Amino acid sequence: MKDPLKFAGISEKEIVDVIRESLTLPKKQEQKPKVLNEAYVVSTTKFDLRTEKLSEENKAAHQDLMDGYVKSLNEISAGLDSADRENANPNNSTFRNLKMDETHNLNAAFLHGMFFENISDVRSTLAMDSLAYMRIERDWGSFDAWQRDFIACAMSSRNGWVVMAYNMFLKRYVNVVVDLHNSGIPFSSYPIVVIDCWEHSYYRDYLKDRKSYIFAMMKELKWSIIEDRIRKVERMMEASK
Amino acid sequence: MKDPLKFAGISEKEIVDVIRESLTLPKKQEQKPKVLNEAYVVSTTKFDLRTEKLSEENKAAHQDLMDGYVKSLNEISAGLDSADRENANPNNSTFRNLKMDETHNLNAAFLHGMFFENISDVRSTLAMDSLAYMRIERDWGSFDAWQRDFIACAMSSRNGWVVMAYNMFLKRYVNVVVDLHNSGIPFSSYPIVVIDCWEHSYYRDYLKDRKSYIFAMMKELKWSIIEDRIRKVERMMEASK
Amino acid sequence: MKDPLKFAGISEKEIVDVIRESLTLPKKQEQKPKVLNEAYVVSTTKFDLRTEKLSEENKAAHQDLMDGYVKSLNEISAGLDSADRENANPNNSTFRNLKMDETHNLNAAFLHGMFFENISDVRSTLAMDSLAYMRIERDWGSFDAWQRDFIACAMSSRNGWVVMAYNMFLKRYVNVVVDLHNSGIPFSSYPIVVIDCWEHSYYRDYLKDRKSYIFAMMKELKWSIIEDRIRKVERMMEASK
Amino acid sequence: MKDPLKFAGISEKEIVDVIRESLTLPKKQEQKPKVLNEAYVVSTTKFDLRTEKLSEENKAAHQDLMDGYVKSLNEISAGLDSADRENANPNNSTFRNLKMDETHNLNAAFLHGMFFENISDVRSTLAMDSLAYMRIERDWGSFDAWQRDFIACAMSSRNGWVVMAYNMFLKRYVNVVVDLHNSGIPFSSYPIVVIDCWEHSYYRDYLKDRKSYIFAMMKELKWSIIEDRIRKVERMMEASK
Repeated sequence: MKDPLKFAGISEKEIVDVIRESLTLPKKQEQKPKVLNEAYVVSTTKFDLRTEKLSEENKAAHQDLMDGYVKSLNEISAGLDSADRENANPNNSTFRNLKMDETHNLNAAFLHGMFFENISDVRSTLAMDSLAYMRIERDWGSFDAWQRDFIACAMSSRNGWVVMAYNMFLKRYVNVVVDLHNSGIPFSSYPIVVIDCWEHSYYRDYLKDRKSYIFAMMKELKWSIIEDRIRKVERMMEASK
Repeated sequence: MKDPLKFAGISEKEIVDVIRESLTLPKKQEQKPKVLNEAYVVSTTKFDLRTEKLSEENKAAHQDLMDGYVKSLNEISAGLDSADRENANPNNSTFRNLKMDETHNLNAAFLHGMFFENISDVRSTLAMDSLAYMRIERDWGSFDAWQRDFIACAMSSRNGWVVMAYNMFLKRYVNVVVDLHNSGIPFSSYPIVVIDCWEHSYYRDYLKDRKSYIFAMMKELKWSIIEDRIRKVERMMEASK
Repeated sequence: MKDPLKFAGISEKEIVDVIRESLTLPKKQEQKPKVLNEAYVVSTTKFDLRTEKLSEENKAAHQDLMDGYVKSLNEISAGLDSADRENANPNNSTFRNLKMDETHNLNAAFLHGMFFENISDVRSTLAMDSLAYMRIERDWGSFDAWQRDFIACAMSSRNGWVVMAYNMFLKRYVNVVVDLHNSGIPFSSYPIVVIDCWEHSYYRDYLKDRKSYIFAMMKELKWSIIEDRIRKVERMMEASK
Repeated sequence: MKDPLKFAGISEKEIVDVIRESLTLPKKQEQKPKVLNEAYVVSTTKFDLRTEKLSEENKAAHQDLMDGYVKSLNEISAGLDSADRENANPNNSTFRNLKMDETHNLNAAFLHGMFFENISDVRSTLAMDSLAYMRIERDWGSFDAWQRDFIACAMSSRNGWVVMAYNMFLKRYVNVVVDLHNSGIPFSSYPIVVIDCWEHSYYRDYLKDRKSYIFAMMKELKWSIIEDRIRKVERMMEASK
């Protein structure tokens, strides 16, 4: 090892130049210090859940929770635009905290959206010649084996989510146990079937009987939406080759 | 709400039948109790890192760590095949623990692989007409702004990873701060640029000077691999429409 | 540094002997391999909560949850007695998982007990010459400042606990935000005022209005129990000098 | 349940008055809005470690890390003094982030202090009539059983600490596995034997061979300091009755 520490004492501003130049990129002509332009804006959707397995108060409160996550996400995204990056550190840093909260709210917002989309189909049906059915049989051996595994994952979350996702590393569908909104998530995983397992999902209507709640949600999965998601993922995987 | 609790007292075996039947799926003829067939096998790759910014002992130990994660992942995958799903619960459950450890080792194994692949290019170059450069400019405003943000994320991790990933929810590239291997990960994110920020990556050679280590790794990013990953993601996103 | 690696290759069994001997402790005469004798048994208490701020179904379900944690804790304690210690590791280890779950259930069991003990006093009063009042004034400036800080902590927990604890490092009372049962806890902290902030505490009766629930619990704090806890801590601190 | 929601719509300022008045505490005469006065200041200690089992560079870097935690803790303590409490929430809140970081740095600072204090005794001895020896025998069956359990805990931490602590709930000594600085800690636990298991403790000198590092630290435990801690805890427990 020749000079592992040769950058020591070089400021962050300088190293950014050093690296850019070493890449043969020209020095950018930045006339004026420009604000970062990172902020994205995410909007919420109002869901009209027909299910009778959840009370109306529960549904309304849940929609409010989702709207709150979307609002927080947008506030954090705006806050990140101007957050001090130069003193970012693991122990005491506004930048770090905003980044961690960004993921918390990002997952919360989108998982809630995908959850509301894929439940509450009072005429839920699944055909044996659907891609959903065939992929589940391929990756778990049988539809029933998948059901048992999915239920076990739902019962295992401390307060979080159960998600059947496509994992691009393993090139197969997997069931995932999430605690809260961002603990236990495999990288490169695209959600396909999503059920909220936070206590706020079921405590009003089922008290601590999470299993009955999970059964109720599974009986009304909107397989048409799930099929769309699977078709999308399969197209993506085909294109990735 | 009509009968939220109507499933109460039904066993898991029975509910699996109930749900299958409600979906108009025929009762499967399972002659004999069949083992789940979930186990996947992942193999490790030996990396030959040319960089002089890391010592040979460090490189060898790091390869060993990766091999250990792959070995653990395969053991856990096999263990899950026969784990008891019926008593899965959030407080005291072998199934839950295997599932959480599965994600820990899955992320650890694949992130290490992607990390070793995308560093150690002693002739690192990046062209301004590459997709990598253009996408970074589009999503951060300038290459330098991305560099500053990526460095800030690297410095923010408690002991984990910095990853530039494509996020399918936001439809843009984002920098992500990960603690350990599975805390802080946004769903639907495909890793593009990966740098290990566990202390085992740099402590041998840089002691607590993580910043110099990050600078050294960034100077030798293998942009050809990164370009491949971006092209793949862009094809996937095109196909997803 | 002379020989940091001189123990390499020595088995765990041997090193245990080496260390014992280096301490001049005699080699123990263990006639027969003896099982560890670590298991402890914890029993639960049935609480009779008089408060009208919580529904009877909520109270009953909450008692059941507590009983479940106590049961899990005892099972884990028994499991640890015979768990393989020789192959304990951070990635794939029954021993590690049992130890982490031990803390999860230990905190859950005892915090629930302390919570039920210190709420539900429908004639809640606090005298200005109580130790509780004086210590709170000393450490927060005023009782109202403590109230505001305690409420803010209660609102900050993701799904967990708010605890006013005596911290033996800082030698003062502090308010603590806990996520789930074991994230965010300062070592050397003895709980004094405990309010459950998991959604299971309030969702049945208050839906997502956690603030009203917190106000209701704070209005009925059983200050006589809190005073006992403070007196106990103060005696302990006096003896520790 | 009569009026669980009767506080809805009451502002935090008002409820603080309501609760104070319900406790029969007089309305305080606060002439002027007073800043909270919560900030505490913690100072660091310089340790002179004689051990030859750790390199001098490692020792110096470790002392710097500890000083950094103490500095962060003091900054956070000052920041908390004026942080907005009224809008504290779980998703997007400076107050929450400061509170969580407070615990991270508090544990980091004090565990490092206790660690440096109880290692590096090159003439380490332990007498069989010491309280330490007797309590360990009482709670683990034998000194060797404790050693095996302690080593297993050290090997199990993902990147964190192993601590033998007195737990006031169980009224016994327990070994604890900590991830990072604040995950997995049982409430009401006073640290007695502390060994750092972050990779920064050993990677410079032992690379990934954590076990040899643990053996080396255990061979040089300063049992005189440990005895003092145990005596202190036993006096406290005696006084707590």
